Amino acid sequence: MKIAVVGCGALGSFYGAKLLRAGQEVHFLLRSDYEIVQREGLRVTSGEGEFQVRPHCAKRPEEIGKADLILIGLKTTANHEFPRLLPPLTAPETIHLTLQNGLGNEARLAALFGPENVLGGNCFVCLNRVAPGIIQHLAYGKIVLGEYQRPPLPRTELVCELFRHAGVECEVTPELERARWEKLVWNIPFNGLGVASAAGYEAVLRGSVDPTLPLRPPFSTEQLLAEPDWEKLVRELMHEVILGAKASGFEMAAELAEKLVGRTRQMGAYKASTLLDFERGRPLELESLFLEPLRQARRSGMALPRWEALCGVLRELAEIPGRK
Amino acid sequence: MKIAVVGCGALGSFYGAKLLRAGQEVHFLLRSDYEIVQREGLRVTSGEGEFQVRPHCAKRPEEIGKADLILIGLKTTANHEFPRLLPPLTAPETIHLTLQNGLGNEARLAALFGPENVLGGNCFVCLNRVAPGIIQHLAYGKIVLGEYQRPPLPRTELVCELFRHAGVECEVTPELERARWEKLVWNIPFNGLGVASAAGYEAVLRGSVDPTLPLRPPFSTEQLLAEPDWEKLVRELMHEVILGAKASGFEMAAELAEKLVGRTRQMGAYKASTLLDFERGRPLELESLFLEPLRQARRSGMALPRWEALCGVLRELAEIPGRK
Repeated sequence: MKIAVVGCGALGSFYGAKLLRAGQEVHFLLRSDYEIVQREGLRVTSGEGEFQVRPHCAKRPEEIGKADLILIGLKTTANHEFPRLLPPLTAPETIHLTLQNGLGNEARLAALFGPENVLGGNCFVCLNRVAPGIIQHLAYGKIVLGEYQRPPLPRTELVCELFRHAGVECEVTPELERARWEKLVWNIPFNGLGVASAAGYEAVLRGSVDPTLPLRPPFSTEQLLAEPDWEKLVRELMHEVILGAKASGFEMAAELAEKLVGRTRQMGAYKASTLLDFERGRPLELESLFLEPLRQARRSGMALPRWEALCGVLRELAEIPGRK
Repeated sequence: MKIAVVGCGALGSFYGAKLLRAGQEVHFLLRSDYEIVQREGLRVTSGEGEFQVRPHCAKRPEEIGKADLILIGLKTTANHEFPRLLPPLTAPETIHLTLQNGLGNEARLAALFGPENVLGGNCFVCLNRVAPGIIQHLAYGKIVLGEYQRPPLPRTELVCELFRHAGVECEVTPELERARWEKLVWNIPFNGLGVASAAGYEAVLRGSVDPTLPLRPPFSTEQLLAEPDWEKLVRELMHEVILGAKASGFEMAAELAEKLVGRTRQMGAYKASTLLDFERGRPLELESLFLEPLRQARRSGMALPRWEALCGVLRELAEIPGRK
């Protein structure tokens, strides 16, 4: 079937390449990597084996035309591009599958193309774009797939099969939004504190950066869990996000925080995606990962002091002059 | 995904077994073969390799419950069972895919479950149920898949992928009804004359069986093409069906008849499915393969003398006392 990949960073390229290798007609919408991928294809290196594919390459969505399925792997900071990039690819029944992080991406697609044409996938994968046209697969790869605001349909199962047969571990969730919230219980403390640690512990408590102090090297997951003060912040944030999820209608087991902390210890020194973006001077996905979830959680009226303070620091860090 | 197979003769069992082997959750609705398939599974023998599967077995559709996809492989002579067999399997979005022969099956499903939930597949496969629980695959296997009365959707492509990944050659047609008519250009002469040949050449010209004459051994495709009189009838019938298709809005290349005759010569002595049913004293699929197409073709008001006569003979042969 005809698949368009919009947002050919590490995520979109990786899953697009897998589908292409499995025999699908996959079109990549590219910008800076257009020439090299057009000329040399895309290479995926991995401990599970390396492979190379030659996707159809386009610079403008009009060159691709209508697709059966659009994989959206854009950074959520580029979501304002949806109205320019997606309509040329969209027929009345085209499936829009966002593989992006956090909350609010499906809603944005639904507003443009109708909620019935929107699916979301939570990706559990560690990837790195090591050079133009070269994606390094580090670990994992699973997608948890769901319909936007409704239970799974036969077509959800069919999309899941499409990924499975491309060698991607995939499962269907009856509640996409719950799955999104569950992932945030990890992302908000580890992505958030990872970046915020650059401003120091006091800043994270206070909710604002002291501009007179230099930034420090930010913390990996391992460092966050190695210091009792930071580990306490991790747990407090997790509990606030669990409260936020509950206020949004998604009750979670009390042991979830404990389980995630334990699992993260085993992962070693992992740098969350927002931390990598921060270190590379790239835009931070604050809206979908931190601010929109906080807005939704706030509706309950409950106090979320750690989360509010974290967002304050992240907003300031994202706007440091000289950052892109 | 959850797939229910309704009509577990050779056709339904074969495709159901392939999907099961590829990892799908496949439920067989069985009658006479229930005990043996439940106990020993289903075996598919084939020159391409033999395999065995153990499907979920049910005697009543209520035991299966709602499915994502229903494969309908019933003989079309059992279509009056749809309202009893299918509703317990049907959720609002369940896909009903009929793999049956001829015209009118999709319309019947559409009347029950809405046209938007109906797909049809034209199967090009030679199968034989050699014993309870044992299906012999003789040749081919391709499915040409389409939506009922509309162009393909993304989900059509996804269902196609489902079959492909189960090792079934599958393609999507933009016009299911045209594909159905194209197959009838072969089926009407070869299935029809195969059976009618038992009543003799004069009967087929006249359009009625002489009850004073004994029936003869009916003709394989090879025998039909070996005798100039019968070959002429084959071609005349093909041309009438091509006219009928045209009257229904599906223009076909004039060389189609020539091509089909040539290809059939290469197949050797093949017994069409209706002929096998006739020899085994089973109900004949007259309605979907001959009568409904003729009704549709007649609307144009054109003369279809060979086809009318053939249907007369087949109706009489189908009702010979002692036949089931």
